[in-house]
Amino acid sequence: MTNIFVWISLGQKEREELVRNVTNSNLIFASELSQESQLEAFLSSEVVFGNIPSQWLNKASRLQWLQLESTGFNEYLNIPKNTMSQLKITNLKELFKVPVSETVIGGILSIYRGIDQLTLLKEKMEWQGSSMRPTLNTLNKKKVMIAGSGAIGQRAKELLLGFNCEVTILSKSPGKGDISSVDEFDDSLSEMDIIISCLPATKETIHFFNKDRIGKFKKSSVFVNVGRGSAIDESALIEALESEKLLGCVLDVTEKEPLPENDPLWNSPRTILTQHTGGGSEFELLDKVKIFVENLKRYHAEIPLQYTINFEKGY
Amino acid sequence: MTNIFVWISLGQKEREELVRNVTNSNLIFASELSQESQLEAFLSSEVVFGNIPSQWLNKASRLQWLQLESTGFNEYLNIPKNTMSQLKITNLKELFKVPVSETVIGGILSIYRGIDQLTLLKEKMEWQGSSMRPTLNTLNKKKVMIAGSGAIGQRAKELLLGFNCEVTILSKSPGKGDISSVDEFDDSLSEMDIIISCLPATKETIHFFNKDRIGKFKKSSVFVNVGRGSAIDESALIEALESEKLLGCVLDVTEKEPLPENDPLWNSPRTILTQHTGGGSEFELLDKVKIFVENLKRYHAEIPLQYTINFEKGY
Repeated sequence: MTNIFVWISLGQKEREELVRNVTNSNLIFASELSQESQLEAFLSSEVVFGNIPSQWLNKASRLQWLQLESTGFNEYLNIPKNTMSQLKITNLKELFKVPVSETVIGGILSIYRGIDQLTLLKEKMEWQGSSMRPTLNTLNKKKVMIAGSGAIGQRAKELLLGFNCEVTILSKSPGKGDISSVDEFDDSLSEMDIIISCLPATKETIHFFNKDRIGKFKKSSVFVNVGRGSAIDESALIEALESEKLLGCVLDVTEKEPLPENDPLWNSPRTILTQHTGGGSEFELLDKVKIFVENLKRYHAEIPLQYTINFEKGY
Repeated sequence: MTNIFVWISLGQKEREELVRNVTNSNLIFASELSQESQLEAFLSSEVVFGNIPSQWLNKASRLQWLQLESTGFNEYLNIPKNTMSQLKITNLKELFKVPVSETVIGGILSIYRGIDQLTLLKEKMEWQGSSMRPTLNTLNKKKVMIAGSGAIGQRAKELLLGFNCEVTILSKSPGKGDISSVDEFDDSLSEMDIIISCLPATKETIHFFNKDRIGKFKKSSVFVNVGRGSAIDESALIEALESEKLLGCVLDVTEKEPLPENDPLWNSPRTILTQHTGGGSEFELLDKVKIFVENLKRYHAEIPLQYTINFEKGY
C-alpha cells in the first residue's frame, strides 16, 4: 500500500470525496496528527498532497511524487536541484484560470465604474450620484498589455476581447504570446490603458515592474497583478499611485502575505487588495481533490502525470 | 433663427463642441439666466435640449422638439396626451448601453469575487485572505435571466456569453427576446443564478419584482436592477436580503433618488448601490452633444429624428 501524506486542509465534503476515490492506498491526514508525528508520517510517505514546508524536502528519502495545492511554487525554488530532480512535482496549472481571470475583470470594472468608491460611500450613507458620472470610464475598446502567457493571461485575454479590447500578450515562449521582445513591450507601455502582470516568481521576474517601467504608465492607466508579488517594486508603485501617475491598481498578490499591519499598501490610494483570494471559489477544494485523484490513477498506472512543473523554467 | 433652449448642464469642452456645431440657430443657455428668465426663454424656444421640469410642457406653445438627456422619461408620463402628441420627443436610446452593461458585469463580479467586501476590509486594514476563498463564486457558466430587451439587456447578454453564461431575455416585443411569456419567466426564476431587471417605468412594470417573484429566487442568486427603481418592491427585496434568501444585489436605480438619509437600503446587506451612475463616463456629455447635433441637422433638413420615443409604449 502506498502511503499518501495529506497536508492540504480539506472540508468534510472534500475529504469524503478523497476517501471515496482512494481505495488502494493509505491516506494519512496531517490534521489528525500531533505536530511531532507529522514529519515522521511525511518521511514514511511515497506521495504527498499539499504544500509541505520546503525544508522537509531535504530529508525526504521515500518521496516519489508531490502534488502541490497551488500553481506557483516559489517557496521550493531554493531546494537543491538534485533533490528536486529525483521527484515528480505537479501543480494545479489551469485550476485557477477561471476565478483569477474573473477577479481581473471584476477589479478593473470596479475601478472604471467606481464600484469600490460606491461601496465605501454606502458605508458612509453618502449619496454622490450624478457628480461621479464624469469621473467614470468604460473597459470598452481599451488597449491592454498582459505580461505572461499562462492559462490566466490567456483566459483574461478572451474575456477582454468580449469587451472589444485590443489585447497584447508578452511571452518568452514562442507562439504563446503576441510579442516576445521586452524592448517592444517597454516601447508600448505608454500607450496602454491597462497593464496586467501574470508573471511567475523566477529570478528574472523579480521587480520586473520597477520604477522605470511603472514610470511609463499613462495617468489614466490601471495596473493589475495576479502573478506573484515579487514581480513588482511596491514602493515605486505606491509612489506612482500617490502622485496620480496612474488611475488605480488591483493587486491579488503582494510581496508580503498576509500584509503586515504597517504596510503602506493599506493606505495606498485607489488600490484594490484582493488578498490572494483570486483563485478562490466554493468549488476550489473539491476541484483540487479531483485533480489529485486523477493524477493518483495515473501514478499507479505509471503513465505521465498531469501538470508536471519545470523547475528549470520556474513555472 | 431657431431658438434652442439648452437646459442640460455642460462642461466647457461640451459647450464648445455644441457652439462650434450649431451655426444656424440661436443657443440660449439656461445656466446663464436667472430662474425667472428661464421659463420665459423656454417659452420662446422651438427646440429644447435637456430634461426640463415636466409641468413646463403644459405651457409650451412654440415648442416643436424636445431632445431629452436621458433614456428614461417616466417624469413626463403624466403630461396630457394631446400636449405630447404635438411634440417630437427624442431620447438617448443606446447611449448608455456600454457603461450600464459594464456596471452590471462589474457589480456581479464584485459580489461573486468578494471585491466589495475586500474594499471594506482594506479600509479596516484587516487581512482575511484564504478564509474568504471558499465563500467566493464565479460568473462562469451561470444561468442568467434578463427582463427587458432594450439595448442594455442585449449588450449585457453579449458580455455574459463571453463568461460562458446561459442567458434568457424576457421581452414583450416579438423577436427581440428569448421568451415572451411571463408565466414561463416565473417558472424559471427558481433555476436562475442571476436575475437582471432592465425594465422601463411603465404602468405594467410597477413592482413587477414583487414579494412573490423575489420569493422564487435561489439562496445563492444575485439580483441586478439597471432599469427603473419603480419595477422593484424594495421592502420585499430588503427583507429577502436580510433573511439571506438571495446572495446579494446591485441596484443602479432606486425608488427614491437621491436615496433619503433614513432609507433602509443604506443598511441592506450585500447591496451594491451604484447611485444611478451606471450610464456615466467621461465621454457621456460629449456623446450627448453629438447626438443632439446630429438630430438638429435632421430637424433642419426635415428628415426623421433619431431615437424618437413612443409615449404609448412608454419606452
